Amino acid sequence: MEGQETQTGPELVNVRFEPDGIEIHVPVGTMISRAALAAGCAVEMPCGGMGTCGKCRIHIEGQCSPPDSGELRALTAEELADGIRLACRARLVGNATITIPTASRSLVQKILSHGTMRDVHIIPSVSKLYVEIPKPSLTDERGDFERLAAALTVYDIEATIGVPLARQLPQILRDSDFKVTAVVADHELIAVETGYTVRQNYGIAFDLGTTTVAGYLIDLNTGHEVAVAGAMNPQIAYGDDLVSRINFAMTEPGGLDILRRAASDVLNKVARQLYELEGIDGHSVYEVTLVGNTCMTHLFLGLDVSHLGVAPFVPSVCQAMVLRGDDSGLDVNPGARIHVLPNVAGFVGSDLVGVVLATLREDEDHTRLAVDVGTNGEMALVHKGQLYSCSAAAGPAFEGARISCGMRGSSGAIDSVKITDKVYITTVDDRRPIGLCGSGLVDVVAELLRIGIIDPTGRMLSAEEVEHLPQAVRERLIVVDDAVEFILATEQEAGRRDPITLTQRDVRELQLAKGSIRAAIETLLKTAGATADDLSEIVLAGAFGNYIRVENAIAIGLLPPISIEKIKAAGNAAGVGAKLALISVKERERAAILAERIEHIELASHQEYHKQFMDQMLFPSPRGEVIVS
Amino acid sequence: MEGQETQTGPELVNVRFEPDGIEIHVPVGTMISRAALAAGCAVEMPCGGMGTCGKCRIHIEGQCSPPDSGELRALTAEELADGIRLACRARLVGNATITIPTASRSLVQKILSHGTMRDVHIIPSVSKLYVEIPKPSLTDERGDFERLAAALTVYDIEATIGVPLARQLPQILRDSDFKVTAVVADHELIAVETGYTVRQNYGIAFDLGTTTVAGYLIDLNTGHEVAVAGAMNPQIAYGDDLVSRINFAMTEPGGLDILRRAASDVLNKVARQLYELEGIDGHSVYEVTLVGNTCMTHLFLGLDVSHLGVAPFVPSVCQAMVLRGDDSGLDVNPGARIHVLPNVAGFVGSDLVGVVLATLREDEDHTRLAVDVGTNGEMALVHKGQLYSCSAAAGPAFEGARISCGMRGSSGAIDSVKITDKVYITTVDDRRPIGLCGSGLVDVVAELLRIGIIDPTGRMLSAEEVEHLPQAVRERLIVVDDAVEFILATEQEAGRRDPITLTQRDVRELQLAKGSIRAAIETLLKTAGATADDLSEIVLAGAFGNYIRVENAIAIGLLPPISIEKIKAAGNAAGVGAKLALISVKERERAAILAERIEHIELASHQEYHKQFMDQMLFPSPRGEVIVS
Repeated sequence: MEGQETQTGPELVNVRFEPDGIEIHVPVGTMISRAALAAGCAVEMPCGGMGTCGKCRIHIEGQCSPPDSGELRALTAEELADGIRLACRARLVGNATITIPTASRSLVQKILSHGTMRDVHIIPSVSKLYVEIPKPSLTDERGDFERLAAALTVYDIEATIGVPLARQLPQILRDSDFKVTAVVADHELIAVETGYTVRQNYGIAFDLGTTTVAGYLIDLNTGHEVAVAGAMNPQIAYGDDLVSRINFAMTEPGGLDILRRAASDVLNKVARQLYELEGIDGHSVYEVTLVGNTCMTHLFLGLDVSHLGVAPFVPSVCQAMVLRGDDSGLDVNPGARIHVLPNVAGFVGSDLVGVVLATLREDEDHTRLAVDVGTNGEMALVHKGQLYSCSAAAGPAFEGARISCGMRGSSGAIDSVKITDKVYITTVDDRRPIGLCGSGLVDVVAELLRIGIIDPTGRMLSAEEVEHLPQAVRERLIVVDDAVEFILATEQEAGRRDPITLTQRDVRELQLAKGSIRAAIETLLKTAGATADDLSEIVLAGAFGNYIRVENAIAIGLLPPISIEKIKAAGNAAGVGAKLALISVKERERAAILAERIEHIELASHQEYHKQFMDQMLFPSPRGEVIVS
Repeated sequence: MEGQETQTGPELVNVRFEPDGIEIHVPVGTMISRAALAAGCAVEMPCGGMGTCGKCRIHIEGQCSPPDSGELRALTAEELADGIRLACRARLVGNATITIPTASRSLVQKILSHGTMRDVHIIPSVSKLYVEIPKPSLTDERGDFERLAAALTVYDIEATIGVPLARQLPQILRDSDFKVTAVVADHELIAVETGYTVRQNYGIAFDLGTTTVAGYLIDLNTGHEVAVAGAMNPQIAYGDDLVSRINFAMTEPGGLDILRRAASDVLNKVARQLYELEGIDGHSVYEVTLVGNTCMTHLFLGLDVSHLGVAPFVPSVCQAMVLRGDDSGLDVNPGARIHVLPNVAGFVGSDLVGVVLATLREDEDHTRLAVDVGTNGEMALVHKGQLYSCSAAAGPAFEGARISCGMRGSSGAIDSVKITDKVYITTVDDRRPIGLCGSGLVDVVAELLRIGIIDPTGRMLSAEEVEHLPQAVRERLIVVDDAVEFILATEQEAGRRDPITLTQRDVRELQLAKGSIRAAIETLLKTAGATADDLSEIVLAGAFGNYIRVENAIAIGLLPPISIEKIKAAGNAAGVGAKLALISVKERERAAILAERIEHIELASHQEYHKQFMDQMLFPSPRGEVIVS
């Protein structure tokens, strides 16, 4: 039976690809690059496999074809003797184990970006390389580091070493019988590990928010996200907004240090959740990227925040900062690099740079806007290849704060409102209603505007003034202390002493918030010489963008009136940006360029903004049909 | 009177050059480059003053000629508005203050090197730059670092900042009303100081020896040595040779750390002497270079020395290492860079690299040898542009150890011996003799060899065998315990119970020591394909080279028989190498290249060396006249 098969089918060889650990069978004579592609470990071939660029170097242990003229040109005799070959020229003639160094890998990963997936080349700055090093002898008395460095040149890598690792190196080499895995980042040897540990190669992308912290564990060999975790920011104990935390840092003795430790504590909490999910420990994490608003990253780095709290809101540093693992307080490899992405200004932080990285391309013809709605509405616009950003102090209305029955979008929050013959509400987790969250607030105001209970100036009409509306709707209008309120859930429906209502004052808060953000959008557009009609896309970043109903955001004038197909939710785009900067040095470089190129528009001193703010406090005239009973 | 002078002489203007603080008077219309030359603050003009290279940028406050076409090409409008001009084009038309940035300075200093002075271009990596920075405002909300970095671009400098300094920057800027001196090294901002501190700019070159430590304080603005200090190495308490210190580090709990602290303690002791001499403190020291043997620099860095003590004597690291001031334990600026120069091998350290830097040129046609005689005889040879080095375990005979009446070359040591009709000795400080130091040892053996009391095999003849010698010489030969001794100073002359003598055993020790070093020299020459006749120069480094009488070193066969004019003492050449690496980044780069290029010959396993050692244990036949009474 076997004999027959061999007669008819081609002879197969077994080939194993490292560091992926994937084994496949291919016919004798298969080009290594083909076999690699088949195994899902494609190599880089900028010259298209002509053997001229030498980029597709691999290491082979086993049999393959003799070197051809291309390889003889591209490789030295020593390299050939060491088993280095070009994947685009060498063919397999027997069983073999092939190691593809990071520099030769062609990894592409789909990343969710402005609602659609885009391809990102995986170019991590960390490489793990297994080497077996010649032992010292009377004829080879090179230094321990020098013999390791020489072994790494097989991978075309030149590395330096710092003092802390140099102190441990001799012991590590001897404990591992001179068979080690070297971890190299940006030409520096950052760790040396006993034996073959190439596959444990991780990085974390952090989004350090004022309220919540998210962490993404990435396998740096593949670029894949392998775990996600989150936690509340414990700095809330020292103030739930940035200004109170800045005050705490400035006035409390050791306050800055307390907040710094709180930041690293919560990052470690998230990191350890990630480690548990993946079954690893912090020693296998060699690179971290971190985004956050300017204040949060200042607090993590222990930078002076005194001047962030008062005009003109000057940061200590805008550029990207790098810390070593053992200087960062994080439970990662001591030699790891912690990259804090750059800020644009005091209120436009690396989180917005992350959003731009994930959602906008600065070199395109289209006009695009990315908006991250939170306590501050941060946004970026690209128009004719130019980038603009600003931050509008919207206030916390969209997060449910300063709204009489407001709450965050957690269990029991009214998150959508529809009014026809009567009032229909839904709540988070379908629980009995306990308050009103941001998306519910936008809904109810949009609906009341549409049916005329709220007029374009924001005034709430009394039941007497809207006699044309159905009774079930009208009877929800009550007057408390001479002011009109609209009942969203009665005492009975809510199961409590007071009804859940929207007050005239709530409407005014929303007008301030949405007026502020919309005025910022209009100011950005005007500064760029564009109008809303030019916009080919609006990307909504953050949780708010996922939950808000876009048509209602337009109805209340929060967003300009463009076709709703052009408005997309991007989820945690800041976090996606941090991930991009982690898996690709090119994206990290782009973050630095973006932060420098983005023109920041300071709204506080901007005449156009104040003019727009006055206009945009008003609501648009309703365009939908008005229900008449 | 004044009126008359003005009529005849040219009109003079007053010009002050910073950071030198030199004021001179020059005629109106003088080119700034000429005036700078006259003031001793020459600027760099690679294009020869054609206004094409833009290298001679200076900053002027005061009046000068309008920009010419060369300046308009080389400088931007902003630079011109900021007072930046080309020294080779602009002429003085009124009183002015001119600041010459480090990048534009052309400093050359004479450095004593293999006995002669050579010109070294002063290219320190540290620049101090005074800037007045625009204060933050609503129309200028750049980060604190970014506004400082922008101000530095006037000096054509792009700088980054690390986290520790970023933490302090906002406070420093405000305490100094945004008028600061920035300290930049290798494009990193390493310190920021209040007000104008450009003139306080220092570096230290250290030679960390096994026994003594020397420190040289250098003014980095001028390259001048402003103070020198030294101290004994307190590590002696843990063993006076390297092997016992290595044992202490390996076997004593915390031993390595104790030795590391002892090293930084003595460096600080020397540093503080330097500070007191110059009236400064450690904050004004921004750069340090350090040389020493491989073991000493390993101990300073806290590197593992376990493998330095046993064959094949493998260092942890050979390459140059850099520490930050605040990681080094040294009393210098926290942002200072501590450069430990590279080693060649386990027993050829950065001190020999310093010797080579100071005394040999690798690109020359001549064959030159540099020898540093100590417990180990370390040496380097350049022949046909190739560099070779080795280290011979000479033993401590030349330092007076293991010699029956041996001592260091301190007060009362017999340091020269001459024998004619009788024995003439001199002692250090002309004190009553108390022992015999290295140069005295070489002298007495050379003299006894010349007059035949020692034969070429090293045997000491008894008084009976040398009856032809003067009685005053013969009577100094005594027999103690069946062995011949030669009295250098009698009990009466020495004022003690026993005479000071040279014993047969002492002669054997010297034979071992000189045989070892001479065999090493011959092995180096043979490996390089050269002979002693090819040598155009032998440079003797270290104190020994200053005191030894060269003709006697040849007479006993320590050095090959070449014309004594070709043999030069270079003083502490290792220290000169450290100074060179401090005042010039080019010399520091050369040190790294040298350390890689020097071919190290391991003698322990070298057949030629062992063969030579047997031959070189013997003394040459005396060539001088023999005194016959």
